[in-house]
Amino acid sequence: MSQRSYAIIGTGAIGGYYGACLQRAEFEVRYLLRSDYDQVARYGLAIESCQGNFSLPEVEAYNDPQKMPPSDIAIVALKATQNHQLPYILPHVLKEDGIVLLLQNGIDYEPEIARSLSATQTLIGGICFICSNKVAPGVIRHLDYGAIAMATYYPNYRPAGITEDMRCIAADFEAAGIEIRLREDLLQTRWEKLVWNIPYNGLSVVLNATTEEMMAAPEIRSLIEAIMAEVALAATASDRHISRSYIQSRLKHTEKMQPYLTSMKLDYDAKRPLEIEAIIGKPLTLASRKELKLPRIQTLYQQLQFLDRQNLNSARR
Amino acid sequence: MSQRSYAIIGTGAIGGYYGACLQRAEFEVRYLLRSDYDQVARYGLAIESCQGNFSLPEVEAYNDPQKMPPSDIAIVALKATQNHQLPYILPHVLKEDGIVLLLQNGIDYEPEIARSLSATQTLIGGICFICSNKVAPGVIRHLDYGAIAMATYYPNYRPAGITEDMRCIAADFEAAGIEIRLREDLLQTRWEKLVWNIPYNGLSVVLNATTEEMMAAPEIRSLIEAIMAEVALAATASDRHISRSYIQSRLKHTEKMQPYLTSMKLDYDAKRPLEIEAIIGKPLTLASRKELKLPRIQTLYQQLQFLDRQNLNSARR
Repeated sequence: MSQRSYAIIGTGAIGGYYGACLQRAEFEVRYLLRSDYDQVARYGLAIESCQGNFSLPEVEAYNDPQKMPPSDIAIVALKATQNHQLPYILPHVLKEDGIVLLLQNGIDYEPEIARSLSATQTLIGGICFICSNKVAPGVIRHLDYGAIAMATYYPNYRPAGITEDMRCIAADFEAAGIEIRLREDLLQTRWEKLVWNIPYNGLSVVLNATTEEMMAAPEIRSLIEAIMAEVALAATASDRHISRSYIQSRLKHTEKMQPYLTSMKLDYDAKRPLEIEAIIGKPLTLASRKELKLPRIQTLYQQLQFLDRQNLNSARR
Repeated sequence: MSQRSYAIIGTGAIGGYYGACLQRAEFEVRYLLRSDYDQVARYGLAIESCQGNFSLPEVEAYNDPQKMPPSDIAIVALKATQNHQLPYILPHVLKEDGIVLLLQNGIDYEPEIARSLSATQTLIGGICFICSNKVAPGVIRHLDYGAIAMATYYPNYRPAGITEDMRCIAADFEAAGIEIRLREDLLQTRWEKLVWNIPYNGLSVVLNATTEEMMAAPEIRSLIEAIMAEVALAATASDRHISRSYIQSRLKHTEKMQPYLTSMKLDYDAKRPLEIEAIIGKPLTLASRKELKLPRIQTLYQQLQFLDRQNLNSARR
């Protein structure tokens, strides 16, 4: 097996964790960093994981995409709020026949990212089912789960089936101890994740609450279920179908989870910009093409826009 | 003119202010207090008003309704969350042919209060357009406005027209410098006030915001307008009509107001129970009889129930 090389674009809770797992499995991994560059270049990465701690004292750290050797695969793990940087990064870090694996929340960013790629490059979308936080520069805390669902992007989200590229990446990740779920339809997979992300990320900020606190409150459980039904309705605008039993399975799964602060709540508490457009704005735009009414999601969207702006303004003061 | 006597049930931001105005105009006013009794019995009331400060060093203060002489008019200015006390208070403080003036937010409490009254007693509902806070025991800060709209309650909210009792009370209040608006239809008047109270009270808590901050945010102005349209829809369940121009006038009026924390936000910040049932739960119940869909108000209701419970729990810790 030829050893594939990986570039990690965004070495935070997601990119730092998966990159470190791949490096530990002896893949060549190059990390692009900004604010944490000095720390990580000097001391490497430390992973505090529920599956066992490990540290990588030496990592290949870069603070400039132009200095990175082209890799076979670029794992993009930036927040969607940073995607405007990708046209300046991807041409440098990826081989001519390379693959972008976009590990990101939200929906409908692939069309825009695909425009930064050449015809011989491939875009795969990935959705992470993981609880992890960056707790300090170079220190990632992995709390629970870790699987990635992935599917290839074809123009207009035409289902692409399971490709050889996907199987290769899956083999690498599985060698690194990460569960991979191969999916034939990227857009379906993204809508399914939104069933969870829209209510839990959104309400965790508005209500200042963990998943456990929300599930313990009957009126909020009922609101979450109503929002999930609106997400299922929104998915019909993309000709995708979310079943009632899928919604019920997500609710039951969340009830059993450890109390968890969503990624949006962590961003809010750290006064970082929220992924509102990725997680809520884009789905609303997709649904608006069919003039579907999604009043609860719309309400949440308006509330979050306000809270995000007030939060960032207060950080600047 | 015979001098009518007034009992103030709930000597806070509303009852304390109007009672003091009436006493200053030389009406006999008796105040029922609980936690502030010692302070007010000893030092009286102080009103810091935008229309001129004044103080009443001597007031007729009571801490037990059984000790109060029966009055001609009982002004009930408790929060609606305290209405369960009224059956134990009203029989003592009111003359056999007395009048209850219920100065309270919300809707649909009159039927229950009317059951505590005898056939010769009258119930008038009043809605206050005032910005006032209790800033310390016996100290009321009156920030702006002050008018009261009032209408008589008849069973099933049958419109009662303008009665002689209403004219008498209006004359007393006007002698005390308070503007009174006499209304023929109490239920219409209550729905109209809810057009303002539901969005502004509710969102001020969820968004931690003043009226000015909300009106300055285009997405929140739009959400408020959508919620107001749902209130207008809800009013049709009571066969009442709220026009679009009324909604626009409320938005324009609020834009011109001084930055204002709503009464629900003040309660929330002081960790007091919120008037969620009065302002949102009861309207939803009235509307549910006609199976109207009010998803934004429902969402706000569920969010507020959660926030109220968390807030009161945190106060107990």
